[in-house]
Amino acid sequence: VGNIPGFQQTVHLMPQIEHIKQQIAKENVHFVRFEATDLHGVSRSKTIPARFFQEKAIHGIFMPRSYLELTLNPKDNEVDYISATNYNSDIVLVPDLSTFRVIPWAEKMARIICDSYSITGNPLLTSPRHIVKRQLNQLQESELSLYSAFTYEFCIYGVAEVINSKTIFLPAATLLNDHDQPFIQQLIDGMYHIGANIESFSSSTGPGQVEISFRPEFGLRVADNAFSFRTGVKELAKKNGYIASFFTETGFFNSGILSHSLWDRSGRRNLFHSGTLQLTDIGKNWLSGLLLHSPALSCLVAPGVSCRKRFSKDGKESHEVAHVTWGTNDNSSSYNIKFHGSNGPHIENNLGSATANPYLVLAATIAAGLDGIRKGLNAFDSASHASTLEMKSPTVPLSLEDALVALKEDTCLKEALGEGFISYFVAMKQYELETEESDTERNKFLEYFI
Amino acid sequence: VGNIPGFQQTVHLMPQIEHIKQQIAKENVHFVRFEATDLHGVSRSKTIPARFFQEKAIHGIFMPRSYLELTLNPKDNEVDYISATNYNSDIVLVPDLSTFRVIPWAEKMARIICDSYSITGNPLLTSPRHIVKRQLNQLQESELSLYSAFTYEFCIYGVAEVINSKTIFLPAATLLNDHDQPFIQQLIDGMYHIGANIESFSSSTGPGQVEISFRPEFGLRVADNAFSFRTGVKELAKKNGYIASFFTETGFFNSGILSHSLWDRSGRRNLFHSGTLQLTDIGKNWLSGLLLHSPALSCLVAPGVSCRKRFSKDGKESHEVAHVTWGTNDNSSSYNIKFHGSNGPHIENNLGSATANPYLVLAATIAAGLDGIRKGLNAFDSASHASTLEMKSPTVPLSLEDALVALKEDTCLKEALGEGFISYFVAMKQYELETEESDTERNKFLEYFI
Repeated sequence: VGNIPGFQQTVHLMPQIEHIKQQIAKENVHFVRFEATDLHGVSRSKTIPARFFQEKAIHGIFMPRSYLELTLNPKDNEVDYISATNYNSDIVLVPDLSTFRVIPWAEKMARIICDSYSITGNPLLTSPRHIVKRQLNQLQESELSLYSAFTYEFCIYGVAEVINSKTIFLPAATLLNDHDQPFIQQLIDGMYHIGANIESFSSSTGPGQVEISFRPEFGLRVADNAFSFRTGVKELAKKNGYIASFFTETGFFNSGILSHSLWDRSGRRNLFHSGTLQLTDIGKNWLSGLLLHSPALSCLVAPGVSCRKRFSKDGKESHEVAHVTWGTNDNSSSYNIKFHGSNGPHIENNLGSATANPYLVLAATIAAGLDGIRKGLNAFDSASHASTLEMKSPTVPLSLEDALVALKEDTCLKEALGEGFISYFVAMKQYELETEESDTERNKFLEYFI
Repeated sequence: VGNIPGFQQTVHLMPQIEHIKQQIAKENVHFVRFEATDLHGVSRSKTIPARFFQEKAIHGIFMPRSYLELTLNPKDNEVDYISATNYNSDIVLVPDLSTFRVIPWAEKMARIICDSYSITGNPLLTSPRHIVKRQLNQLQESELSLYSAFTYEFCIYGVAEVINSKTIFLPAATLLNDHDQPFIQQLIDGMYHIGANIESFSSSTGPGQVEISFRPEFGLRVADNAFSFRTGVKELAKKNGYIASFFTETGFFNSGILSHSLWDRSGRRNLFHSGTLQLTDIGKNWLSGLLLHSPALSCLVAPGVSCRKRFSKDGKESHEVAHVTWGTNDNSSSYNIKFHGSNGPHIENNLGSATANPYLVLAATIAAGLDGIRKGLNAFDSASHASTLEMKSPTVPLSLEDALVALKEDTCLKEALGEGFISYFVAMKQYELETEESDTERNKFLEYFI
């Protein structure tokens, strides 16, 4: 039995595995769902009978890579061997034992989040969870840590119908705003039982729009919980006869905002905190990094064609680009710096949509920020409220095509996220853009994007 | 942790917070709804799990300002920086602990009304509750207080249907006038449990019209209760399968009348009371202030296009303006002075509609009255029942556009309600007037104005 280098001896996992096997017995769990995220933050999983748990927990689960990543045929026809070969191979999902939870709204079911590796034991360079772990390690190596939280704004529908026009019209239960559906209460209590801590729930601008914001946490758990939330809210909505969707529909507004702040490694001091209404130097570097890489960043945090529409304020003339703005306590700017709140100053990235993959959002944000720190970029000097600006002001392309071009040319992100991932991601999106004409295809996408 | 200037030490809030945490435990409350009013008197809120109450009660809740106020693009196209900046920032809702109530018609739910501040700790100049608090303080500084009550006349529907004609036809439960629906009883009992004291309920002229009048109170609680009533009656109506709406529909009559009287600070003497069928001098000043500012006043108490139709008596020729009249015990005049009743003389403002925001109605009335007192305006001398009148008689523009012009030119109200608020309010209404053509838009308004 070949071994996978880099893992310690199995015996140190045993007590944890024992503890879990106990829970499995205690709570009468019959099935464990090993899930990993795909490119779109949708969970892909294999379900196993609970009696194989120990073995799978040690050796991981094998599945064809194409589950996580769809297959493409090359456009022109010459045969090249190296790149094509490993898109159809198997990969292995190795579970992260600390994410084991019994699912409160399903019978006899538990779940565990996995990292995906190639079979030679190397982590998949295209797996979002791995990418984000690398970024977190680099933060740790430079004595830093990230304290962040997601806020989702999305739409909940009643049962849909398909008629010949474009919109989905849902008459009855649109009004969630008398705030007391048992559904909401199950959702909030349920999430708490699997470790996802929802801080507030509110109605926002249109009918059926809901906004859910999480309590901030350190490190990876932010993305794990956002991921669990996206899967859970869909299943729970279905159980109560609703549909929850993170897909951006015209006329309905949705966003996924990451608000984050940089702390020292042991999580004691907030490194954005300078005592005045200014960021510290390291804060300015971090933000400049985000500004610099915004064009490329934007197609990771708003990866859908129709979720970029709101980058341009008005709908008449169509310039190619939109201005990237920053501000203090200004929700209309792309990057919003907030100095209030019980945890000190933090930055909100408003370019994000609910469709984005939370792992990629987190990874890209860290990559851009660190680049700002390493190059000591600085786009500001001290200021009153009225200020003048010399350097070229950053812009964001309105169309997805241009954003993909920007991503390809962004050497820093290419390094940070990995060569393979970027070229794969770009290829992926172009494919979508090309195959977009008739409607039936779209539904495949509806199922596809759920 | 930066502190918000003007707050005392946290430790004095603790006993109140303790008292509330007990209630939360005693009555098994799982969620607390922090709500504030927007420009239209519709409640906007965030719901939190009860276990975060103490923390939020001390630090308040942050939300983007755009919840309370919609965003506008400037009309012409030159870029100006100062005014645009702070419309998109966060604001903070700080709860007023004395308004905590468990909601009798919802399960495990409580609510609390909040004041909205900017994050630097300054109250929002555009928040209606703040504006009205300032006016009340000015009353207190000049040894005065206001004793007032709202009377609402609105329509309750059964389930609505959308067909191609204009009217809503509601066949079954139109007859509320055999007076004994459990719904009415829940409404009145429920309101009493949250501090809103309904004095009488009656049927009025057409089918489905109801009139509800409140018991008068001192100061701010009048507006708080009107606000709670507007939210509550909608939720309760929905629970019983009806729809309550304060929106003015053609063919159905609706009004929101503020009847008020001026008292000394400690609430012992009614300053309108002169022993004869005449107002005291200070009363005449107050009324003259109202008369003078009627044009501007009218678009705060009748802010909808179709709720100004009843300013003109008959429907044929269409003059530009309607005459503002006053009278003694005369319900057809704009301002009706009543000398009977157990609380002495008071003034009823009949220009108001049910769509108006109760906080603004209260604030504007006080501002106009105080202006009359400060300038010692007087439009009368002593009289029997037959009287002659020399001075130019005040008028009210019939269309909303002209009323907005009048509001902008009214320097006194501009000072009292704040520069920012007025220009924002005006911009707000013009936007509505421009975007008024097709029907589907209207329904957004239906939801919008609920």
